[in-house]
Amino acid sequence: FSWVARMATDDYVGFTFFVGCMAMMAAAAFFFLSMNQFDKKWRVSILVSGLITFIAAVHYWYMRDYWAANMESPTFFRYVDWVLTVPLMCVEFFLILRVAGAKKSLMWNLILLSVIMLVTGYFGEAVQRDQAWLWGLISGLAYFAIVYIIWFGEAKKLAQTAGGAVLKAHKTLCWFVLVGWAIYPIGYMAGTPGWYEGWFTGLNMDVIYNIGDAVNKIGFGLVIYNLAVQASND
Amino acid sequence: FSWVARMATDDYVGFTFFVGCMAMMAAAAFFFLSMNQFDKKWRVSILVSGLITFIAAVHYWYMRDYWAANMESPTFFRYVDWVLTVPLMCVEFFLILRVAGAKKSLMWNLILLSVIMLVTGYFGEAVQRDQAWLWGLISGLAYFAIVYIIWFGEAKKLAQTAGGAVLKAHKTLCWFVLVGWAIYPIGYMAGTPGWYEGWFTGLNMDVIYNIGDAVNKIGFGLVIYNLAVQASND
Ligand SMILES: CC1=C(/C=C/C(C)=C/C=C/C(C)=C/C=O)C(C)(C)CCC1
Ligand SMILES: CC1=C(/C=C/C(C)=C/C=C/C(C)=C/C=O)C(C)(C)CCC1
Repeated sequence: FSWVARMATDDYVGFTFFVGCMAMMAAAAFFFLSMNQFDKKWRVSILVSGLITFIAAVHYWYMRDYWAANMESPTFFRYVDWVLTVPLMCVEFFLILRVAGAKKSLMWNLILLSVIMLVTGYFGEAVQRDQAWLWGLISGLAYFAIVYIIWFGEAKKLAQTAGGAVLKAHKTLCWFVLVGWAIYPIGYMAGTPGWYEGWFTGLNMDVIYNIGDAVNKIGFGLVIYNLAVQASND
Repeated sequence: FSWVARMATDDYVGFTFFVGCMAMMAAAAFFFLSMNQFDKKWRVSILVSGLITFIAAVHYWYMRDYWAANMESPTFFRYVDWVLTVPLMCVEFFLILRVAGAKKSLMWNLILLSVIMLVTGYFGEAVQRDQAWLWGLISGLAYFAIVYIIWFGEAKKLAQTAGGAVLKAHKTLCWFVLVGWAIYPIGYMAGTPGWYEGWFTGLNMDVIYNIGDAVNKIGFGLVIYNLAVQASND
């Protein structure tokens, strides 16, 4: 057996890492095992939902132990996770909008913006913490560009063309990006120095990020799952 | 090779952790690999049975090592496990009653009650042990509310509307909740201080919880499995 760290009963950070890890594993199993229940055209989307939660499960396994061993934020692993999973979420937008003729360029634009958002965020959080506000600002601009494209831009128009269950799912995903993803900048401001210091004192950055990940990764996947169920019933 | 703890021949607690872990793994494999044998409408229910035992298998793996390493109750991990698996059991009630038109609100009510039951139980067991009786009482009230809903309330009526194999399975699950789940408060009273001290001396809390988990998680899943078999023969 391997050495097992004792977990303090009031270690809420450790608790969210642990629950998050297990929830991601279960979600990945759920998506992987469900994919063949659906019509061919939905299978890739469900598979990608499974990959997003699977990647997260592996990173949470790591981050949970990292936290238990060092009692320190596993920022590095978190960004490794995001830089893989957030582009995959952009792929999901593209996949469901393919029925309306979405072009690959839409996907690549979203992916590029998400990578800019995350790389600049990492710089602010881990490399140039004194300038966290500036890097956060640049990151935020890329975030707004994503929000714009899906809420009002090209993606919105494609969703309207598709109509029906796809339009409804697209709308829900848009709310996830606007409200669910907004959890992350809050965690960032709670965990970095800057003129916004004190806005979110008392909140723990890792707990915020962990809640955000559970909501966004599993929730996003369930929206796609639900879309496949709806579309199969039509 | 990794270092392997020797297991004392009379370590009954360690024994139940070990057997429990293996039984959960086998049950998860059984449910996962069986799901495609059944008609589409039963597959999600079987998959959820698989997830419940899969989640338990991972936690038992952990808890077994935790016990071997620290000779201490892995209370924290146990509640992480419950807080994921008990709500999934509530989902199972909803899934089998969908044929009779069960509404999502039924599912959410049961989930909410189960979370209240577990969070208050955790408080009594791990945070405010001096007040264990009070937290246990609140937890017990939530437990009775669940029992009421499935035995006499909304869920009961839906089961009667559904009739046949669904009604029979629902009845068996009701007995699991009334008798099988009642194992847990016994473990709680054996493991916490309070005016009930002495009622269950000699009984070990972890052994009781481990037996409860095996009965309820695997048994519950088998009832669903059996329902799918019956319904496919009709
Ligand atoms: C705007 C902004 C950020 C946004 C992060 C986001 C939106 C992350 C999303 C992650 C997801 C969706 C992960 C999971 O599945 C950062 C980088 C914290 C830096 C501060 C400014
Ligand atoms: C009433 C009561 C409790 C009930 C726990 C139950 C009913 C747990 C069920 C767990 C299951 C079914 C797990 C597995 O699969 C507690 C929290 C011990 C605290 C004391 C009062």
